[in-house]
Amino acid sequence: MQFVKLDFEYSDDVTVINKEQFDVHMRLYEGYINKMNEIDALLKANTGVKEANATYSEFRGIKRGETYALNGVILHELYFENIGSTNNTPNPQISQILSRDYGSFDNWKAHFVATALASRGWAILCYDPRSDTFRNDSLDTHDDGYMAMSIPLLVLDMYEHAYFLQYADNKAEYISRFMDNIDWQVVGDRMELLQ
Amino acid sequence: MQFVKLDFEYSDDVTVINKEQFDVHMRLYEGYINKMNEIDALLKANTGVKEANATYSEFRGIKRGETYALNGVILHELYFENIGSTNNTPNPQISQILSRDYGSFDNWKAHFVATALASRGWAILCYDPRSDTFRNDSLDTHDDGYMAMSIPLLVLDMYEHAYFLQYADNKAEYISRFMDNIDWQVVGDRMELLQ
Amino acid sequence: MQFVKLDFEYSDDVTVINKEQFDVHMRLYEGYINKMNEIDALLKANTGVKEANATYSEFRGIKRGETYALNGVILHELYFENIGSTNNTPNPQISQILSRDYGSFDNWKAHFVATALASRGWAILCYDPRSDTFRNDSLDTHDDGYMAMSIPLLVLDMYEHAYFLQYADNKAEYISRFMDNIDWQVVGDRMELLQ
Amino acid sequence: MQFVKLDFEYSDDVTVINKEQFDVHMRLYEGYINKMNEIDALLKANTGVKEANATYSEFRGIKRGETYALNGVILHELYFENIGSTNNTPNPQISQILSRDYGSFDNWKAHFVATALASRGWAILCYDPRSDTFRNDSLDTHDDGYMAMSIPLLVLDMYEHAYFLQYADNKAEYISRFMDNIDWQVVGDRMELLQ
Repeated sequence: MQFVKLDFEYSDDVTVINKEQFDVHMRLYEGYINKMNEIDALLKANTGVKEANATYSEFRGIKRGETYALNGVILHELYFENIGSTNNTPNPQISQILSRDYGSFDNWKAHFVATALASRGWAILCYDPRSDTFRNDSLDTHDDGYMAMSIPLLVLDMYEHAYFLQYADNKAEYISRFMDNIDWQVVGDRMELLQ
Repeated sequence: MQFVKLDFEYSDDVTVINKEQFDVHMRLYEGYINKMNEIDALLKANTGVKEANATYSEFRGIKRGETYALNGVILHELYFENIGSTNNTPNPQISQILSRDYGSFDNWKAHFVATALASRGWAILCYDPRSDTFRNDSLDTHDDGYMAMSIPLLVLDMYEHAYFLQYADNKAEYISRFMDNIDWQVVGDRMELLQ
Repeated sequence: MQFVKLDFEYSDDVTVINKEQFDVHMRLYEGYINKMNEIDALLKANTGVKEANATYSEFRGIKRGETYALNGVILHELYFENIGSTNNTPNPQISQILSRDYGSFDNWKAHFVATALASRGWAILCYDPRSDTFRNDSLDTHDDGYMAMSIPLLVLDMYEHAYFLQYADNKAEYISRFMDNIDWQVVGDRMELLQ
Repeated sequence: MQFVKLDFEYSDDVTVINKEQFDVHMRLYEGYINKMNEIDALLKANTGVKEANATYSEFRGIKRGETYALNGVILHELYFENIGSTNNTPNPQISQILSRDYGSFDNWKAHFVATALASRGWAILCYDPRSDTFRNDSLDTHDDGYMAMSIPLLVLDMYEHAYFLQYADNKAEYISRFMDNIDWQVVGDRMELLQ
């Protein structure tokens, strides 16, 4: 099975990033797609399987690349999918669910923004089945910090490549404009799948 | 919601580790349970939310601990659950599925063992919905290397604490005895949920 | 002892980055200075010393921040110090030394550029006293990958914040212009200290 | 230049670990020596230099292994060198220096023990030339957390492999017995080199 790039079109509804920042981000995403195909071909050929070692081995290098590139593919797709709506209102059900775990929707929002500010990779609102709660997951890289078995609902890229071309070091502004450009319909659809 | 330790009983069917190694591992698992309750109380009290920062902040420390401890809880529970069967035969459906992606069950097994030898934390057979394939996930810590959205089916703890008391540095022997003590019924049950 | 920001002035001799990219990078460097003072004050007050724990503890969070911010300070200072010369010729002694370990100066250069392309944080030419050789150190973050006891001679920032504002994802171009803007006099001075 | 294993002999003066724990630890150290020779041969042959990439590439895997194995070699040598003295008294100069930065020798000791308890890899007392202070460095792996340009003076291995065979999960006891078995003469000799 080959990885194929999904199509994401820039439109006027995307207010969190401009076309230039969007285009360069798309190229990086495509890079992860290509790397996954390279990695899967190496695995298919059983490269280095017999000399596997945890200090250094070619197989170890491939496996480290696999989780990094695969999560790079998946998280970017979720991110591009959940931005671009000018109707920035969560439906009542979402507000209610987040209020249950955070006291209020606004308090959840404060936690999510704080998670973004504290993270070097990604901030993800997810459902954690182990505790039956909604958590704001903090990742430092594509594959460092993902919560096991969690279902991602809202995904925010906090890598410097996601905002630096447009915002430089003003990450607070980037986050603020992301919060105003969430496609809550997409988030709601993902929540539907939980039930 | 409070985290509560699940009960795992040692029995003669557990051949991969002896009672002493099992008991110490149980105490470490319980430590993660307790840490999650400590962390959730801090989050509930909105500790450090207003001073979040990605270089250093109290909130950042809490969030890093959250993914580490939560995955520590979840992966240990999956691990203890999928060991301890003396009937070490995967059902035909599992063999067939893994043969599809790896050429043969034996080749999958070679890949899984190599993944364990190449990993500093965990080896996990999981289903990756993005590529509709079964992958052997390599983790270096509880929260470094988990594949986004993946469903874990078979979980092997490769932390030194999992085997060192009994096997010292003979990790190949530990892995070999794990492969002979997998509860394939549990793995099969987890696969059922995929359909 | 308080950390104080060193002065680095932008000049026409700095060709690897423009003034805008330089200024934003300076602000990030200043952020690490401030964080170190915050962290040192917490340590001075013995914050969390009694509840130290490796899964999660406030003390652990402080210590993780300490290595990250401190290396952020040190490596940025070395980087800003070793760029900005239009006389881009290593002195004969440097060429000779690198030729000893890499066959030729050009082959060392190929390795250094490859190290930069393979790294998510920093590329550093350093002296490794353990093997009495010059190594190209690859770091993924400020504090992930630094070689113990090594002496840094040439430091290149490969964080996305170092080039993205000016070069977007064209990191090869950034590296190429860095290689043409090295202050080899500074590198030579650092080598002098080795003898 | 080939890496050659240094000789460390077990004696009755080593009270922090028994002979069995010592021997297995020696084998792991030897593994890092061997891996460095393997890695240096790959680098000498310019393996993968032309296809270097930061997501995945063979060269990247080699460079990650290089810092991990090299630090594994260096830190283990420093550790084995600074244990095994029954005359557990720091000389007055060391006490005085640490008192300057920590208020008292006992407070430094509390910080060092806390650093060990908070670390997943190593605790190191080192001299930081940037701030002209003595810091307790916390590492999570061989190459994650080392302070740039620092000079290590006292090194404690907190990997589970360092104590688990003898102490199981009782790491507090291991640390306590380490503190009573430090060779302060060695630490003093390393401090001499600073002046």
